[in-house]
Amino acid sequence: MHAISFIQDMAVIMLVAGLVTILCHRFKQPVVLGYIIAGFLIGPHTPPFALIHEEETIKILAELGVIFLMFCLGLEFSLRKLFKVGATAFIAAFLEIVLMIWIGYEIGAFFGWSTMDSLFLGAILAISSTTIIIKALSDLKMKNERFAQLIFGVLIVEDILGIGIIALLSGIALSGSVETGQVFATVGKLSLFMVVALVIGILLVPRLLAYVAKFESNEMLLVTVLGLCFGFCLLVVKLEYSMVLGAFLIGAIIAESRQLAQIERLVEPVRDMFSAIFFVAIGLMIDPAILVEYAWPIAVITVAVVLGKMVSCGIGAFIAGNDGRTSLRVGMGLSQIGEFSFIIAALGMTLQVTSDFLYPVAVAVSAITTLLTPYLIRSADPLSQKLAGIVPSRIARVFNLYGDWLRSIQPQGQGAVLAGMIRKILLQVGVNIALVVAIFLSGAYFAGTLAGYLSDWVGQANLQKGLVWGAALLLSLPFLIAAYRKLKALSMLLAEMGVTPEKAGRHTARVRKVIAEVIPALSLGVIMLLLMALSASILPTLELLVLIALLAAGVIALLWRWLIRVHSRMQIALMETLEQSQDHHR
Amino acid sequence: MHAISFIQDMAVIMLVAGLVTILCHRFKQPVVLGYIIAGFLIGPHTPPFALIHEEETIKILAELGVIFLMFCLGLEFSLRKLFKVGATAFIAAFLEIVLMIWIGYEIGAFFGWSTMDSLFLGAILAISSTTIIIKALSDLKMKNERFAQLIFGVLIVEDILGIGIIALLSGIALSGSVETGQVFATVGKLSLFMVVALVIGILLVPRLLAYVAKFESNEMLLVTVLGLCFGFCLLVVKLEYSMVLGAFLIGAIIAESRQLAQIERLVEPVRDMFSAIFFVAIGLMIDPAILVEYAWPIAVITVAVVLGKMVSCGIGAFIAGNDGRTSLRVGMGLSQIGEFSFIIAALGMTLQVTSDFLYPVAVAVSAITTLLTPYLIRSADPLSQKLAGIVPSRIARVFNLYGDWLRSIQPQGQGAVLAGMIRKILLQVGVNIALVVAIFLSGAYFAGTLAGYLSDWVGQANLQKGLVWGAALLLSLPFLIAAYRKLKALSMLLAEMGVTPEKAGRHTARVRKVIAEVIPALSLGVIMLLLMALSASILPTLELLVLIALLAAGVIALLWRWLIRVHSRMQIALMETLEQSQDHHR
Repeated sequence: MHAISFIQDMAVIMLVAGLVTILCHRFKQPVVLGYIIAGFLIGPHTPPFALIHEEETIKILAELGVIFLMFCLGLEFSLRKLFKVGATAFIAAFLEIVLMIWIGYEIGAFFGWSTMDSLFLGAILAISSTTIIIKALSDLKMKNERFAQLIFGVLIVEDILGIGIIALLSGIALSGSVETGQVFATVGKLSLFMVVALVIGILLVPRLLAYVAKFESNEMLLVTVLGLCFGFCLLVVKLEYSMVLGAFLIGAIIAESRQLAQIERLVEPVRDMFSAIFFVAIGLMIDPAILVEYAWPIAVITVAVVLGKMVSCGIGAFIAGNDGRTSLRVGMGLSQIGEFSFIIAALGMTLQVTSDFLYPVAVAVSAITTLLTPYLIRSADPLSQKLAGIVPSRIARVFNLYGDWLRSIQPQGQGAVLAGMIRKILLQVGVNIALVVAIFLSGAYFAGTLAGYLSDWVGQANLQKGLVWGAALLLSLPFLIAAYRKLKALSMLLAEMGVTPEKAGRHTARVRKVIAEVIPALSLGVIMLLLMALSASILPTLELLVLIALLAAGVIALLWRWLIRVHSRMQIALMETLEQSQDHHR
Repeated sequence: MHAISFIQDMAVIMLVAGLVTILCHRFKQPVVLGYIIAGFLIGPHTPPFALIHEEETIKILAELGVIFLMFCLGLEFSLRKLFKVGATAFIAAFLEIVLMIWIGYEIGAFFGWSTMDSLFLGAILAISSTTIIIKALSDLKMKNERFAQLIFGVLIVEDILGIGIIALLSGIALSGSVETGQVFATVGKLSLFMVVALVIGILLVPRLLAYVAKFESNEMLLVTVLGLCFGFCLLVVKLEYSMVLGAFLIGAIIAESRQLAQIERLVEPVRDMFSAIFFVAIGLMIDPAILVEYAWPIAVITVAVVLGKMVSCGIGAFIAGNDGRTSLRVGMGLSQIGEFSFIIAALGMTLQVTSDFLYPVAVAVSAITTLLTPYLIRSADPLSQKLAGIVPSRIARVFNLYGDWLRSIQPQGQGAVLAGMIRKILLQVGVNIALVVAIFLSGAYFAGTLAGYLSDWVGQANLQKGLVWGAALLLSLPFLIAAYRKLKALSMLLAEMGVTPEKAGRHTARVRKVIAEVIPALSLGVIMLLLMALSASILPTLELLVLIALLAAGVIALLWRWLIRVHSRMQIALMETLEQSQDHHR
């Protein structure tokens, strides 16, 4: 019977996984390693025989494991955390990812692997493992030290960049080639989609969850959360992005709800169950013969991961202004690969663009670097002392001077406040513009369908498109006006704070006025140009555009106040959600 | 792609289930009903089209739902609770089940259904729904009233009897016929298996879980619990019992561990997820055409369920000594069918002995009776007042007299203590004898295999069997001696407490001595006879038996004290587990 052999599989997986993880725990190794070993033991490549019968079903459940892993990563990720991580995290993560992709690609090329294999190898090496680092740091009781906080910051940035990498790789794998323009287009569309999804999601989802939570039924809350998770994954898949991206995004959205703690408590057991299946399924795929055959690449890649991450993250942390010891600790803490690499390797296999050996190689490298992680973290301090002894004091002084210089140019006091305000306004403008772009692009995407619906009432094709365009313009007006007003506020702020009487002397007032008027005018022009460019995606002719633009101008004049009110109400709702969840955040 | 259509299924199931359950909650209906309706809506029989693609995979996950449902039922069930429920629960549950099976069978026969269909219909009607009753009682805020406590007692007994019914039905379905002897054999073997599994399980499992819990990792505890659950289910399936039975038993075993509260918190989300799939999968199977076609049977069965359960449980509660009002409330509270019925109906379909229409009919009856439940509970009081007005005062007096008489014959004071002690000793003797029987039966079962292993060292077939028999005897000696000693203690107790000087006068001492010696001698004889009977299952010849019996006598004489110590140590371990978990029990 089908069901019984499936139960047998589950029994074997869970029993062996439980046993091996207990052993792993005794020897202070992460649970993940235990799962993979368990999968290897019961897999088809190890004697005495294959213990798993319904491999197809197990693979589907492993897929659920990936979804839940990424969903929980999204729950733990939060926009606020991302805004708070300092320059260190951004610089280190960016440097690490770029360098590791390049190193991975070069290693692949060196061994004569295909372009796709090399590219995926680069991506596999790019991102460190959150679970393994957290495990190692808490085992070493270093979770609250400064370098650990930096590492967590890097991991958050890595998550979001990793999501981008996955989207990029899917695009490249589907088209089969790497073109700069295409990469930018993909990144642009992806960023746009993420901003729109986050804004709409944070407006709607926390409200829905608060409503469901009122019933005080764990079961209903869980089912609703699962529905949102799978539903959003499905939507993302239909938009031809990876499911993984959807799970992460909806997790990040749900993370902004007040019920986050309760939801995490409910979802964690489900994640633990399915992620165990996922990691065991990884172990199932390991063929010892492949490991022996690829022993040489595995060794090279392992060294590359440890040294590459140490150097790139360390330099990144140093550039951002940390002392040498902290930078080295950050670099050595991040020197491993883990679950994200498996997900990327799985992506390659699902898309059928990578060779069979890549997955086991990634798993082997991950296992070795995982084992090394605690030793690396512990040896960071002795190593930095030894380095300090070797480096000539002159060079050391140059390094120290760099740090001093960096600290001296950091904005402080009023300057820091101003910088913060400018950043905030620019972010708001960016979000508003992104929403406008999204409205126009979806208008263009659905123009055909919409025109079809309209054809009963409106005969002329041009007029149909015109109507679609008009609707898009009307929808985006609140955001356009908001962006314009924010920019105006920014220009006034700049004029007031940037132009001080000490510098401009008696011209102060006049310079301020110029700045306060030039920037809005410029931005209005830029917005108009953007609108023109966007309109081209829907509208074919210029005459119509002019006609409708005039109409729009009329509408704006009439509804100016109302449109402002609409937008500010939405903005208040968004801010409230973000602030409410902040109170309840860990 | 396979995985994506599966994710789509999950998204549809969870989204629709979430939506419909929210609606159900608004209209104060149980969540279960919402799931079934959701399944019906997205099912293949309702327009516009079938929304589920990977029905096979969903069915497997629904199977997991059944396992988790029964596992959690086992977790909530506990041996201690079973020992505590009063006579009311036993009498009412037994009466209800017997009557409802009979009614169901007769209804099936009346409509000309096959014997199997009728039998399964009876079993489907036999057991009330714990989840629906708890939901209704907490909605009505009656959970802490006396009749509610009685209902919970009945539900606990129903669970264990329901497990028996499932085992019986599986046996009957496999053999295709109902024979009294076979039924008794099945019940006997089942009870034996359950006792042995519980004793061994409670000795081992809580210790294992306490060990795993020391690592303070929710993930490892969950994986271990899942491993135990699936592993035990697999064992039970290999012994040709139903998986459902295994899930319930291992749940009851784990319920005796100290980590129960933590385990329940971890397993509940997993159960909620899969049980949602299970109930939705039930809804998927509902074909409106069948409901219309079988409208008449559905109506008859619904009336039969409401009236039959009301009468049987009410009378049961009354016989056990409750007043009329409480009895009626108990009866009306239990007037519905639910998840157990679905499991039995699913069993019939899996074993392919029932017709297709039975499942939808059961679901329809369950839905209607679920909707009726709160109204029935609320109308119990008015109805009992109305009945009290109608019933002639003479008959009412007879009823009251019955209650008084029942209370008068209940053992009280010293008598009650004595009865309690006797019950306890008999239970211990029963458990020990059951273990002995189990050892010999497994000896007989594995005799062939064991003899095969022995054949390298021992040539003669008789000698091989003799060795197996000897080993079985040696293994069972601690339990045999314990049973004998318990019986001896019982006889002394009876002699001391039962023979009072008031009754026996100056013969007291002599009568006591006779009783204290006759009972052990008799029990020794019975034990010997039992051993002979059991030995026949392994041994072919008498000479060998005599030879080894002599050897055994020698061993007993030599090791008497040691064997007692072995047994008492095991007993202490068992008692400790039960008492420890009592402290931590809700």
